[in-house]
Amino acid sequence: MIYFNSDYLEGAHPAVLERLVRTNMEQTVGYGCDPYCEAARAKIRAACAAPEADVHFLVGGTQTNTTVIASVLRPYQGVLTAVSGHINCHEAGAIESTGHKVIALPSTDGKITARQVADYVEWHRNDESVEHIVYPGMVYISFPTEGGTLYTKAELTSLYDTCLAYSLPLFIDGARLGYGLTADGCDLTLPELAQLCDVFYIGGTKVGALFGEAVVITNPALKQNFRPLQKQRGGMMAKGRLLGLQFDALFTDDLYFRIARHADEMAYRIREIFVSAGYPLLFDSPTNQQYPILPDRELAILGENFGYEYWTRVDAEHSGVRFCASWATTPEQVDALAQAVRDLRK
Amino acid sequence: MIYFNSDYLEGAHPAVLERLVRTNMEQTVGYGCDPYCEAARAKIRAACAAPEADVHFLVGGTQTNTTVIASVLRPYQGVLTAVSGHINCHEAGAIESTGHKVIALPSTDGKITARQVADYVEWHRNDESVEHIVYPGMVYISFPTEGGTLYTKAELTSLYDTCLAYSLPLFIDGARLGYGLTADGCDLTLPELAQLCDVFYIGGTKVGALFGEAVVITNPALKQNFRPLQKQRGGMMAKGRLLGLQFDALFTDDLYFRIARHADEMAYRIREIFVSAGYPLLFDSPTNQQYPILPDRELAILGENFGYEYWTRVDAEHSGVRFCASWATTPEQVDALAQAVRDLRK
Amino acid sequence: MIYFNSDYLEGAHPAVLERLVRTNMEQTVGYGCDPYCEAARAKIRAACAAPEADVHFLVGGTQTNTTVIASVLRPYQGVLTAVSGHINCHEAGAIESTGHKVIALPSTDGKITARQVADYVEWHRNDESVEHIVYPGMVYISFPTEGGTLYTKAELTSLYDTCLAYSLPLFIDGARLGYGLTADGCDLTLPELAQLCDVFYIGGTKVGALFGEAVVITNPALKQNFRPLQKQRGGMMAKGRLLGLQFDALFTDDLYFRIARHADEMAYRIREIFVSAGYPLLFDSPTNQQYPILPDRELAILGENFGYEYWTRVDAEHSGVRFCASWATTPEQVDALAQAVRDLRK
Amino acid sequence: MIYFNSDYLEGAHPAVLERLVRTNMEQTVGYGCDPYCEAARAKIRAACAAPEADVHFLVGGTQTNTTVIASVLRPYQGVLTAVSGHINCHEAGAIESTGHKVIALPSTDGKITARQVADYVEWHRNDESVEHIVYPGMVYISFPTEGGTLYTKAELTSLYDTCLAYSLPLFIDGARLGYGLTADGCDLTLPELAQLCDVFYIGGTKVGALFGEAVVITNPALKQNFRPLQKQRGGMMAKGRLLGLQFDALFTDDLYFRIARHADEMAYRIREIFVSAGYPLLFDSPTNQQYPILPDRELAILGENFGYEYWTRVDAEHSGVRFCASWATTPEQVDALAQAVRDLRK
Repeated sequence: MIYFNSDYLEGAHPAVLERLVRTNMEQTVGYGCDPYCEAARAKIRAACAAPEADVHFLVGGTQTNTTVIASVLRPYQGVLTAVSGHINCHEAGAIESTGHKVIALPSTDGKITARQVADYVEWHRNDESVEHIVYPGMVYISFPTEGGTLYTKAELTSLYDTCLAYSLPLFIDGARLGYGLTADGCDLTLPELAQLCDVFYIGGTKVGALFGEAVVITNPALKQNFRPLQKQRGGMMAKGRLLGLQFDALFTDDLYFRIARHADEMAYRIREIFVSAGYPLLFDSPTNQQYPILPDRELAILGENFGYEYWTRVDAEHSGVRFCASWATTPEQVDALAQAVRDLRK
Repeated sequence: MIYFNSDYLEGAHPAVLERLVRTNMEQTVGYGCDPYCEAARAKIRAACAAPEADVHFLVGGTQTNTTVIASVLRPYQGVLTAVSGHINCHEAGAIESTGHKVIALPSTDGKITARQVADYVEWHRNDESVEHIVYPGMVYISFPTEGGTLYTKAELTSLYDTCLAYSLPLFIDGARLGYGLTADGCDLTLPELAQLCDVFYIGGTKVGALFGEAVVITNPALKQNFRPLQKQRGGMMAKGRLLGLQFDALFTDDLYFRIARHADEMAYRIREIFVSAGYPLLFDSPTNQQYPILPDRELAILGENFGYEYWTRVDAEHSGVRFCASWATTPEQVDALAQAVRDLRK
Repeated sequence: MIYFNSDYLEGAHPAVLERLVRTNMEQTVGYGCDPYCEAARAKIRAACAAPEADVHFLVGGTQTNTTVIASVLRPYQGVLTAVSGHINCHEAGAIESTGHKVIALPSTDGKITARQVADYVEWHRNDESVEHIVYPGMVYISFPTEGGTLYTKAELTSLYDTCLAYSLPLFIDGARLGYGLTADGCDLTLPELAQLCDVFYIGGTKVGALFGEAVVITNPALKQNFRPLQKQRGGMMAKGRLLGLQFDALFTDDLYFRIARHADEMAYRIREIFVSAGYPLLFDSPTNQQYPILPDRELAILGENFGYEYWTRVDAEHSGVRFCASWATTPEQVDALAQAVRDLRK
Repeated sequence: MIYFNSDYLEGAHPAVLERLVRTNMEQTVGYGCDPYCEAARAKIRAACAAPEADVHFLVGGTQTNTTVIASVLRPYQGVLTAVSGHINCHEAGAIESTGHKVIALPSTDGKITARQVADYVEWHRNDESVEHIVYPGMVYISFPTEGGTLYTKAELTSLYDTCLAYSLPLFIDGARLGYGLTADGCDLTLPELAQLCDVFYIGGTKVGALFGEAVVITNPALKQNFRPLQKQRGGMMAKGRLLGLQFDALFTDDLYFRIARHADEMAYRIREIFVSAGYPLLFDSPTNQQYPILPDRELAILGENFGYEYWTRVDAEHSGVRFCASWATTPEQVDALAQAVRDLRK
């Protein structure tokens, strides 16, 4: 079996793992105050061209989203997101467990627009019952989105301008940030993205690390007392250096971006395999997640040798599924898939 | 000015107020353990034909919904509701503040169906990521709904059967219960409604009391330790007898139902005023809330002498608004409205 | 039976009730935006000599404490209180239910000192593990305390100076504020108290109202968006005018203070009854709550005709109990108690 | 510098790390459903002689305590603990952030007794205001405690009998479980401990793993739906196998116990170094944490070459400090400390 189900099937990129092994018996202080975390912070600040940013390391995405959002919102506020946003769908109610409503805006491609945000805020503030309705307190987006799509620089600029106009902090979930920034057609750089939001995170778990997400807070108003909240939410690792070491490795010699680009290229080959064979796509994704639509009958055959993620039913006989490439995907794995799809159509 | 904005514009029905005045200087124990609360409980149990039910008195609707829902759900569960449900729209995030997601199902008339509930539960339990998605833990409906509509006995029976099949407690928000049960075409009695759910409340604030809602818990599994939670949620009144006295008065000589019926009849006159003048309705409501659609220009004229609640924009020149009748509405008030609408159309 | 168990045994002062009766059939807007609430706010601001203060009306004490504290604290912060504070002991975990730790400081008389607050903050901020320990975020005291005792002007000034020095908002629970301000030996006026804290509330439930507490926010930084939180916490009354009317009556012609002083004077007679008969006191209370220590045997006899609140066991044969006077206590009731105590000692 | 500050200064035991390295490029499903997690579960169940137990893997201690406690308690309940309990002191209010009060019982050695629990429950249930006071909902203890002390089999049996009598689930925090079970004088085995509570966890982070805690639920009533709550609380690792692999390694050939015993033996040498030099101890700890009391002046000298954790001020010139041994502590490190202490006393 070859699995394309997700981008967290393997362990860590060898260069990352090697750092953990090499430093294993060193003694360092805990909770993210060690020299490796400091070094990683410096490299991330440099990569973001954000010398004043605060950088915090957490273990996983749900934990990170929850901690960031709970740190920003006041109790009467909720967070605006696309209806397909990870926090709305696949975090088991983590945001609500901190007391806040997830306010879902309609979306077909996983993105929301500046207009949607403006309309919502205007509707809310002009409603006679404004005090009876959850206040919008921040905006959450993903880059890339759940469907693998990307905001353009123009779209993100427009969204952030709207957020600024309404004093709504903008938070970008970058669980797959690398795969987005290195995608064909992406017109945003990391420093640009860092300037077009108030806080974001750089995903490690899905892009080469064993685990780990790096929160980057660029808005000074959001910096205060993140660490006690991180501790309270169970997101402060005792051996914090494990996170620092990994991000230090990932942000050395552009490793993070090189392995992300590799994954995107593997994904383009996967996409081409399906498109050239005549299969439609659920989303037009330029990143490492691809969503072909296949007949259930062919999916069953393919499933004997290949893993994929079931996404959604399209009609009585067709389903949309997800094939992920990652930093670990090999050309040989993709070749095998290509052959299997060719065999399907014989 | 004559106001039809809501059903809580005046104080209490005179018979209710008289009870408060007459007993004012008596000394009783607090927190709902006094003889008046006991008497009211007995009368409510009798009216519901539910001799084993637990009855608790709270001050207002948001408090009641929050306390009941928080008492039923486990932390990983959410509550299913129509997208227009009061808990989803107009309680300032009270449910989420207790840690639970409000899971909104689409609805145009304020009601949800047994099929929708079954589909949601089946979709959830068959999803590969079931543990990443909020579990449905109970179902919340309103009777009448926000649009004034009613479940038929067949609809409620079907919904409750589905809830039982999936072990989902059903909670009925009866903020306007009286106006529903006495409506033309309602084929449910209070004892029947009490048998077709696990817990519900009988609204007093909008139906003759100064304030107060009576929670009726018929499912023994939900009875335990409601009172400490009521205290924790700020819903246990020190002078609890104020609630007991009011419900005792309301459930003496059918007062609750008599005044509710009066309101419905006033509402039917209001409805007829608009329908006969050719105005369409936003919802087909048989209860005390009526929702005519008028040109904004005419609304402005009407608004000089009459209060109504703005509901929703229909198109560039028309809006849907709400006119409420209540136990306090007089025929003279309705006559004045009739004349004003006639004048509009001259 | 004559009951001295608490100060919320009866309904409302007749002048308060009369206001409710007289205005019963008037139509007003809801949620505290009516003219009666505005009038009451104006009178309270005047009585506090705090023309810029925000004034909000809630129904009960637990609700009020919870809403105020949740509105002030950030998620990583807790509230400092005396170990005997109402929020620590008798609110069923309401504060914790909003996510915040109640940090209890030792106290024998119900009061805490400036030194205790300073020591706690200094200890916290100098601890190596500061980020692992709940941050002190505000200070809660009661005036009078649970034991009926009062802060002097010097004590409160010192405490508030310390709070200011450490940027900790000071919140005063005034459930029995009237009984404190009119007590013999109290050297604080309402305007002075209003200047020596950031937010406090004026208790109505225990001082002449049917129910109701008036929150006074003097610190501008704490004013923002209290109302949506009030709604969320179930503390925004639909017929908000009921609260405005009552406080308007209480703050007309000094009614609030006149009835409070009456209660204190009744309490001094109760105190004298026990002291002159040789019974010791649990607390040296100058307010409406008195705490004599009696042999259990005598308490049983007294309990046949008089209600009191059991407070604490003192030794194998003696208990401390509470006798409350209130605005409703009559000289005749106290005379009867005096005779009964004399009979005990025959 | 040689650091004895804590037991999480280094990475992982080499045998654990080797497992991660060896399996790095394997593809497995996520979220703890992989074969390595299953294998580790089987070994843990065997080691506990608890074939029916549920075993879940989480990343860190705060996360684990929070998830377990939130899964057990109902909203009106709190958790009983020693005042020095980790959840009360050093988790940044994590338990309160889930809505529950931490009910602290006095303790000088970190332990609580069956009598204390019984007294608390009896006091609560007999109080007239029982519904106004947080209900005890479970009991939390640590083994070893924060002071390194251990419950004897008799003490734990008595405590658990009391818990059973009052229907209070007993949860044992085993962050340092290995160091306790292998300590001189410990009369409990892992299977016995597993039978004397309802749920406990086996700490990995401090005993040889890079990170990870294994929750063992033996009480069937507590098993249901732990996983969605684990996800919601941010405690479900995407690459869950990392946890399975580590615990599989630790529970192969008794590695967990062998390395724990090594640490205890190093700790006994540390203890002897101080005791034989005449220094008193803050706690009489038989485990890997030792707490000598030294003059501040000597601590400053020692601190030039050795790391320790400051614990508490004893008097104006003396402090209690903590020296931790761990699986990674070498005899050479301890020898160096011995020499340094000898030098102090020259």
